[in-house]
Amino acid sequence: MRGSILGIRHGYQKVGFKFSIRGNWHSVGNYNVPFCLQSTSKPLVYALVQEELNQETVHQYVGHEPSGFTFNAISLDPANKPHNPMINAGAIVTCSLLKQKMNLADRFDYVTKMFKRLTGGEYLAFNNAVFLSERETADRNFALGYYMRENKCFPEGTNLMETLDFYFQLCSIEVDCDSASVIAATLANGGVCPTTGDKVFSTNSVRNTLSLMHSCGMYDFSGGFAFEVGLPAKSGVSGCIMLVVPNVMGICIWSPPLDKYGNSVRGIQFCKDFVEKFNFHNYDSLIHSPKKFDP
Amino acid sequence: MRGSILGIRHGYQKVGFKFSIRGNWHSVGNYNVPFCLQSTSKPLVYALVQEELNQETVHQYVGHEPSGFTFNAISLDPANKPHNPMINAGAIVTCSLLKQKMNLADRFDYVTKMFKRLTGGEYLAFNNAVFLSERETADRNFALGYYMRENKCFPEGTNLMETLDFYFQLCSIEVDCDSASVIAATLANGGVCPTTGDKVFSTNSVRNTLSLMHSCGMYDFSGGFAFEVGLPAKSGVSGCIMLVVPNVMGICIWSPPLDKYGNSVRGIQFCKDFVEKFNFHNYDSLIHSPKKFDP
Amino acid sequence: MRGSILGIRHGYQKVGFKFSIRGNWHSVGNYNVPFCLQSTSKPLVYALVQEELNQETVHQYVGHEPSGFTFNAISLDPANKPHNPMINAGAIVTCSLLKQKMNLADRFDYVTKMFKRLTGGEYLAFNNAVFLSERETADRNFALGYYMRENKCFPEGTNLMETLDFYFQLCSIEVDCDSASVIAATLANGGVCPTTGDKVFSTNSVRNTLSLMHSCGMYDFSGGFAFEVGLPAKSGVSGCIMLVVPNVMGICIWSPPLDKYGNSVRGIQFCKDFVEKFNFHNYDSLIHSPKKFDP
Amino acid sequence: MRGSILGIRHGYQKVGFKFSIRGNWHSVGNYNVPFCLQSTSKPLVYALVQEELNQETVHQYVGHEPSGFTFNAISLDPANKPHNPMINAGAIVTCSLLKQKMNLADRFDYVTKMFKRLTGGEYLAFNNAVFLSERETADRNFALGYYMRENKCFPEGTNLMETLDFYFQLCSIEVDCDSASVIAATLANGGVCPTTGDKVFSTNSVRNTLSLMHSCGMYDFSGGFAFEVGLPAKSGVSGCIMLVVPNVMGICIWSPPLDKYGNSVRGIQFCKDFVEKFNFHNYDSLIHSPKKFDP
Repeated sequence: MRGSILGIRHGYQKVGFKFSIRGNWHSVGNYNVPFCLQSTSKPLVYALVQEELNQETVHQYVGHEPSGFTFNAISLDPANKPHNPMINAGAIVTCSLLKQKMNLADRFDYVTKMFKRLTGGEYLAFNNAVFLSERETADRNFALGYYMRENKCFPEGTNLMETLDFYFQLCSIEVDCDSASVIAATLANGGVCPTTGDKVFSTNSVRNTLSLMHSCGMYDFSGGFAFEVGLPAKSGVSGCIMLVVPNVMGICIWSPPLDKYGNSVRGIQFCKDFVEKFNFHNYDSLIHSPKKFDP
Repeated sequence: MRGSILGIRHGYQKVGFKFSIRGNWHSVGNYNVPFCLQSTSKPLVYALVQEELNQETVHQYVGHEPSGFTFNAISLDPANKPHNPMINAGAIVTCSLLKQKMNLADRFDYVTKMFKRLTGGEYLAFNNAVFLSERETADRNFALGYYMRENKCFPEGTNLMETLDFYFQLCSIEVDCDSASVIAATLANGGVCPTTGDKVFSTNSVRNTLSLMHSCGMYDFSGGFAFEVGLPAKSGVSGCIMLVVPNVMGICIWSPPLDKYGNSVRGIQFCKDFVEKFNFHNYDSLIHSPKKFDP
Repeated sequence: MRGSILGIRHGYQKVGFKFSIRGNWHSVGNYNVPFCLQSTSKPLVYALVQEELNQETVHQYVGHEPSGFTFNAISLDPANKPHNPMINAGAIVTCSLLKQKMNLADRFDYVTKMFKRLTGGEYLAFNNAVFLSERETADRNFALGYYMRENKCFPEGTNLMETLDFYFQLCSIEVDCDSASVIAATLANGGVCPTTGDKVFSTNSVRNTLSLMHSCGMYDFSGGFAFEVGLPAKSGVSGCIMLVVPNVMGICIWSPPLDKYGNSVRGIQFCKDFVEKFNFHNYDSLIHSPKKFDP
Repeated sequence: MRGSILGIRHGYQKVGFKFSIRGNWHSVGNYNVPFCLQSTSKPLVYALVQEELNQETVHQYVGHEPSGFTFNAISLDPANKPHNPMINAGAIVTCSLLKQKMNLADRFDYVTKMFKRLTGGEYLAFNNAVFLSERETADRNFALGYYMRENKCFPEGTNLMETLDFYFQLCSIEVDCDSASVIAATLANGGVCPTTGDKVFSTNSVRNTLSLMHSCGMYDFSGGFAFEVGLPAKSGVSGCIMLVVPNVMGICIWSPPLDKYGNSVRGIQFCKDFVEKFNFHNYDSLIHSPKKFDP
């Protein structure tokens, strides 16, 4: 299977798993039901902003550490920065950094164009109803925004309301398992979309993004996920998980029922079963490993 | 270089780096000055206790999550367990689990024999002066021990004073860069000592150990280290760092001056330079990566 | 002096102290320079809302405990209520409770009329410039407001923006040492304005208000103030301190330079000197006390 | 009743209340059942150490602030001192300060002699069984002791084990409602034992002690107690509460069932009923108060 990047698309209701060793795409269940990216937009925004600004500049504004058990607290790290770009606070800050000079409409256009390239041209849309509802109910994000403005977390000249709108818009971008698995596969493939050959991100941006997905991508279960599954992933409250097997494949599972951490119940189960059966855990490929199935 | 597990030994005063692609061992500087394992004994004790008990039993007593910024605090995770076996609290608990039925002398004998196998028969000794001094000055560890006993963190029948003595003894085991690099190489080699072919640990124990070294091995710099270096490592206050490049090599650097996190200043610098030059970062091997040197 | 409630007014630049035992009012320095109530409005709002609703209803929404060293943190007590009505979070909540059915203009009218009665008809005005500036720069208060709305801290039907406006308005009410010392004296006098005989507050409301001023009135110095001065007081960032000697007198000191806690430097010094010389500390009146001056 | 200091003794099983206005002592229930001082020794040790050293010296080692909601945590204040002498950490430190030059036996003799004077010669004994059991089971206190030694909380030359023994011994001193109510009355009387006229403490020590009992005496319910009862008090896990009405009387209630805070359930109820009926709340004596019964 080496050398071919596959995508696995998984929908709601049924749980299945299939893939090919010849670059074919396999899908099971409701893989064409659209859902919003929600938090799975965070690693993409982080990668995007690293393309635009260099790594040092980005990390002047946001850390790269798990935040420990204070995940839900309104808190900043000792340097008064959000702990990492995979949590709300950090993603609001990376949004503020993205194409600062453009107006909001152009910034949104820019992001959707880039995201579309990540999907290799597959389904991507904007769900205005979700956007309006997000903006209406996001007390915590407004609290975070004001708290961070007080703590001078944003670059000079940032318009807080516009930044929050931008953040809500990016959470409201709609994909399906088809398109999201190509996004994951693009990350697995070092930033080159496997279906089009389009180099969207530099490998350095992808490396940093995968590192943080590995340690911080699954809310408060991130540590447990890194231990048990050992693969970079990001979940969203819409019930999706994007799972990346570097150099091998990208997977998108969508199944709305969430556990207490906010992760898809079936998605987590799938990931555990997946590394149980296949040798894809980060430290699974040790030479003297018992033989798991290596596709 | 694939297929050969190398060890790099690095001593104090000079910083150098050399290795071979044919299983030869290369050493630079004061690689034969003995120093105490200190915290680098923690991953080894964790691997040992997993050999003896199964993974689920061990993790009934200790978590597998980074502890966030409360590293130095006397605190337990929400399940009233130490956060992970790489911090003092967790290592005291794994010590309490190790060969509980034996008396202290036999337990210590057992551990030194196992550690000796990890080194492939190279230098390993007990520094009684360090042990006595550790026991004398370890207010924090006594505080932790009593706090955990209050919180019923130990298996029934645990003798707290004996457990702490055992813990101090294991911290006081002496190695040098020669022997410690073989230990690291044994971990890199999936539990099989590369110089003797002796299978000391199962790959499953090694996988779990490397996972936790990756996320929790470098004190409060663990998150930053995972991001920048992306390799499993463990540091000790004696100034050593054991660095593992899975399937490739084990490295020991020893250089006593410590930074504010308690990590060897030169050791950290070495690790950064190492992944700067070679493609060993966990997410470095992406297909479309710019060409770093791949030995 | 027993039996007569005096007010001491103290202005900026000079520090002096004078009073009479016959109900005369004594003022020193710039006692007629207007300044904004700021946080000194908090105990008054708390007393007002207790007049309107009963004590139990009020404390369903706000606690009555010092908040410890987390004073500046965005945090709630274990029952998800602000710790007490003397901190920003708590005062925003008491504002939301005050005359909920009225429109904002009528609510503001109501408060100013009540405050005017507390001053016995002395100087009270609205500083619109301060209000606008408060509203402009109050990131922390907006963060608190959204955070509390998320945590359902407000009574049903609360309009958050209007509540915050109301809160900023009440902070922007202007007094001078003359009028503020009469307010303090009204509290000292069990709710009856000593210059007019007007019963503005019930003694029960005053008792509760003085209790919380005693334990929580001086920001993070509240514990130290209770220990050293032992009198109910409330400070504001405009540099004023309202100090209450129950049954004896009310004092207002105004001197803008603030210490690290946000309390007037000279105001604190005055309070310490005051109880050093006179036997007004809460536990000063012990039978066998050494004789301090008892006016 | 002014001018006479009364003691109210209250025992287990029945709840009653009686007192005289002519200095007579009234007791109800099992007032002669002995119980251990436990935490009610803390204010007495604090007063004692202030007699020996001056206030400034004592407070170099211990704070005078409520500790907030971190009461049970192993934590120190920002100056690395225990928050106040009414919590375990603070009381262990005040014990270490008491007659440092004496040997343990003489220190204990000194304290029992002083405590005996506080009781006016009534029942005081040492319960060795409780002492041994305390020492056996006090994991938290050992943890605190080691943690504080690590943080250099003790005066130079302190022997930690001896200090903890001393602390456990003072907690194991036995009184009954008879003798403990005289102790409370001695505090109410400014340090002069009302039954013997013996001046045991200076009024300054008593003032500071009452201040801290007022704000920190009832574990995590201290804030609520100050608000609702408004009188200095100290509870102990043996089920006793010493309540002080300055210049009026001392009360001891003993009733072992404890609430979640560790305070006697009936004791707390008694205190609430007491200030409900009589005008003894700290801010009850306001001139225009509704008439409660003033004995």
